[in-house]
Amino acid sequence: MGTSLRIIENNNHLLLTVKIAMSQNSVNVPSLKLRRVGIDTYKENVAYLHRDCPIYRTEGFQALSKIEIHIVGNGSPVIAVLNIVDDDSITAPDQLGLSEQVYHQLGMPDGTEVFISHASPPSSIKSVHLKIAGERLSNDDYLRIIQDIVNNRYSKIEIAAFLVGCAESGMEREEIISLTRAMVNTGEQLSWGEHLVSDKHCIGGIPGNRTTMLIVPIVAAHGMLMPKTSSRAITSPAGTADTMEVLACVDLPQDKLRDILQQERAFLVWGGTAKLAPADDILIAVERPLSMDSSGQMVASILSKKVAAGATHLLIDIPVGDTAKVRNSAEGLKLRKIFEYVGDKMGLHIEVVLTDGSQPIGNGIGPVLEAMDIMKVLHNDPQAPLELREKALKLAGRIIEFDPDVRGGQGYVIARDILESGRALAKMNAIIDMQGRNPEPMKLGILQQDILANSSGSVHTINNLRIATIARLAGAPLDKGAGVYIHKKVGDKVSKGDALFTIYAEFNADFNFAISAEHKDPCYSIKSDDVDDK
Amino acid sequence: MGTSLRIIENNNHLLLTVKIAMSQNSVNVPSLKLRRVGIDTYKENVAYLHRDCPIYRTEGFQALSKIEIHIVGNGSPVIAVLNIVDDDSITAPDQLGLSEQVYHQLGMPDGTEVFISHASPPSSIKSVHLKIAGERLSNDDYLRIIQDIVNNRYSKIEIAAFLVGCAESGMEREEIISLTRAMVNTGEQLSWGEHLVSDKHCIGGIPGNRTTMLIVPIVAAHGMLMPKTSSRAITSPAGTADTMEVLACVDLPQDKLRDILQQERAFLVWGGTAKLAPADDILIAVERPLSMDSSGQMVASILSKKVAAGATHLLIDIPVGDTAKVRNSAEGLKLRKIFEYVGDKMGLHIEVVLTDGSQPIGNGIGPVLEAMDIMKVLHNDPQAPLELREKALKLAGRIIEFDPDVRGGQGYVIARDILESGRALAKMNAIIDMQGRNPEPMKLGILQQDILANSSGSVHTINNLRIATIARLAGAPLDKGAGVYIHKKVGDKVSKGDALFTIYAEFNADFNFAISAEHKDPCYSIKSDDVDDK
Repeated sequence: MGTSLRIIENNNHLLLTVKIAMSQNSVNVPSLKLRRVGIDTYKENVAYLHRDCPIYRTEGFQALSKIEIHIVGNGSPVIAVLNIVDDDSITAPDQLGLSEQVYHQLGMPDGTEVFISHASPPSSIKSVHLKIAGERLSNDDYLRIIQDIVNNRYSKIEIAAFLVGCAESGMEREEIISLTRAMVNTGEQLSWGEHLVSDKHCIGGIPGNRTTMLIVPIVAAHGMLMPKTSSRAITSPAGTADTMEVLACVDLPQDKLRDILQQERAFLVWGGTAKLAPADDILIAVERPLSMDSSGQMVASILSKKVAAGATHLLIDIPVGDTAKVRNSAEGLKLRKIFEYVGDKMGLHIEVVLTDGSQPIGNGIGPVLEAMDIMKVLHNDPQAPLELREKALKLAGRIIEFDPDVRGGQGYVIARDILESGRALAKMNAIIDMQGRNPEPMKLGILQQDILANSSGSVHTINNLRIATIARLAGAPLDKGAGVYIHKKVGDKVSKGDALFTIYAEFNADFNFAISAEHKDPCYSIKSDDVDDK
Repeated sequence: MGTSLRIIENNNHLLLTVKIAMSQNSVNVPSLKLRRVGIDTYKENVAYLHRDCPIYRTEGFQALSKIEIHIVGNGSPVIAVLNIVDDDSITAPDQLGLSEQVYHQLGMPDGTEVFISHASPPSSIKSVHLKIAGERLSNDDYLRIIQDIVNNRYSKIEIAAFLVGCAESGMEREEIISLTRAMVNTGEQLSWGEHLVSDKHCIGGIPGNRTTMLIVPIVAAHGMLMPKTSSRAITSPAGTADTMEVLACVDLPQDKLRDILQQERAFLVWGGTAKLAPADDILIAVERPLSMDSSGQMVASILSKKVAAGATHLLIDIPVGDTAKVRNSAEGLKLRKIFEYVGDKMGLHIEVVLTDGSQPIGNGIGPVLEAMDIMKVLHNDPQAPLELREKALKLAGRIIEFDPDVRGGQGYVIARDILESGRALAKMNAIIDMQGRNPEPMKLGILQQDILANSSGSVHTINNLRIATIARLAGAPLDKGAGVYIHKKVGDKVSKGDALFTIYAEFNADFNFAISAEHKDPCYSIKSDDVDDK
């Protein structure tokens, strides 16, 4: 065949070799030394291999996109995307660098001998292709997909393909149940040992809408069990956990939680430490940047977390408005039916209410600003934002009516009585003390700027999305004191030069981002009073 | 409001500040110093920011997923995903690290002052959401999507959403034309100044199918113009450019290409340097790991490259077989119609042939092994693989019939005459010499292992996909001498212990990957001769 042989320059003899078992024979495979690389790659596993690695051909691996990292004598491999390194100080040729995410999953020290192999695509990806082709998936399909996702076998683009596949052809109701079950079953599940464990959830999108921190003390003061785990904000200016953290510790061990519950009937903590429906966080990390929020995914995401958290009775708040997630009541009704159908099948007692989502609720947006609003309501302060108070009372009333001893329609009155009598405040203080009161005073961002009306008239619209973005850019929720304080609501009269809202920030860069974004695309529209409705 | 002010510890005074113009006012924004980070992030822009960066809050940026990197006084920003660094030696707190990809796009030296901002999603992402919702997109929608993709404004998950969106609801023929046009118009276009510029393309998936390197010299010897730009393999064991590179230089400047064309009527080079339909490579980098290959995307991808490369007459080869991309002739026919429809609208004279894709074509798989097959055919060597020769003659004949002076049905005879007379070999040698002959002899991988039949009978099937994977794992195309040599084809009699094929590799790790993959999931199935067809 006219070939000529040559001895290849392969410095394998310099390398450690390890014995691995292959299907029919056992061979010596040279190993790399594990190295932690101080890079946080946010929900995507990344490994680093030097371009001049004497063992593996980097280019071949990279185009194929994923590798399996094996520890000698250790069971299941970890999957990662490969980046190629040209700098020995990041990863030397005889090392395999791991981003923080992978390093923690492997849980082995620097220098551990590892070898890598080509990762085959997760076996459940075939089901994703079927879904993309428009087919209906089974219970088992969803379980295998979610298992692979929880085990980090999906890359971000594969997760995107799954989400878009589900969004596009739509999920049948039975499929949403399958997905919800799969998400519950691939994580931990809590149980509180009572027949009535109440919970509430808002689908989000309305800044300032911090009703949970009012509902929980009211409902608990009525004597009902409400173990409330909440999320931190991912792309919004504050989650309930962020706002509660202004007042108390929100990260507590399980046995402490049970103590609080026994004594006070409720707590308000961060749900991130428990591994409840862990697939959800992974899916959300792709959904958010894609602005995907299909109803099937949303229902499965919310209900799986609630079932895993041990809730039996659940109130869902769906705000409806032009700049809310749900634009009109027809859409809201459709979503309500899905929640009810899936909730029933999951054994939840579920109630869904459509609420006014036309503008922010309350005045403060951002952890400290929201906490201030809430404490004013609990103190029955005449300056307290009225519509936040009213909405919280209505929702608390509905939850109180889950109590079989409460007559239908009486919940609101009971809730109002609890609030006005000061029992809600007392309960909140007791919960705060048991969780561990934050000794620091509430501080607003030192950088403050009023945004002024550029004409006279009355406030026509306030864009929920934009005002949330401004508060977020200003630094909320990371800077607790950052955010937006709203002075004028829809319908309020304004004169040119009146302050519409104030931006609070702690860092210059964030302050400028927020002001610049408002100038580019203002949150308010003002209607001249000369123009009558026609 | 009961707030207390505090002075924040912000060491901004230590930092350079730069003046940027904002919409209504001009402010001083502190800048970071650009730093090249020696990490190759393969078709995804990644920037690195230290967790303790005194200017920007890293967590806020990371969840939002993308940033814009601005150079002071410089026009358009570059978009990147943000990774957070905890190691000063990779990126210090006052620096912004850039992966190789971003560094080259920005084209500025280390230490350049930059600032960053939150990237808004590309405006065309709205059209992607419409497509996901099942709507038909316009010419203009596709143009804006492809422009944003070419300008690196799409993250990989956004590209995945676009691809899945198009695959799932399907693209109408008019949409495929819009996409093809958009891909042509966002890159360079070549023109060769003649009315008949011939080209061919195989949709791929069949190992060893290197007919192009036979067709080009035959067609050129007939006097027709065939400026052939080919790709390198991405996930296959060899592309035409990889195999041609065994014989000659394939990376040549434009004016040299025109010289060769004038003198020899053809060349065989790598198409990667010209920016023809650059969106295609970006889309493929996501399509491949997802194993997505929807017909709309495939047709747009192939035809846009051909139109951009200046072809006027195009032959498309669609291999059909159980382990080929197209499984049956009904599917093949459907794909053919789309090629014809879109090709006509793009002003291409297009012919589509369905060919036998049931097993590999030729014996060699991998650059050197394929080049050897090709040279044997050109030399009229009796050992030359017959079906490679026959297929090349048939396809070359079809292209020769594009010549208005050739009578229908005469192409094959003309092609055979050119090959048998040695004129094809002479033309190939002339092309090789003009491109620059590779002085090194062809060398096969030093590591060799025969894969033996484990029973007697006759070869029933050879899995295209698996044998391509074996050749790829063995190191092809990066190690030119790596790959697979096939000894037995479908229907051949074999005795237990006969060599079915030989694996060639240059590196131990690759050699073991290939052998291990074959043991796990063999490429061949053998039918016992005792069992007659029933």
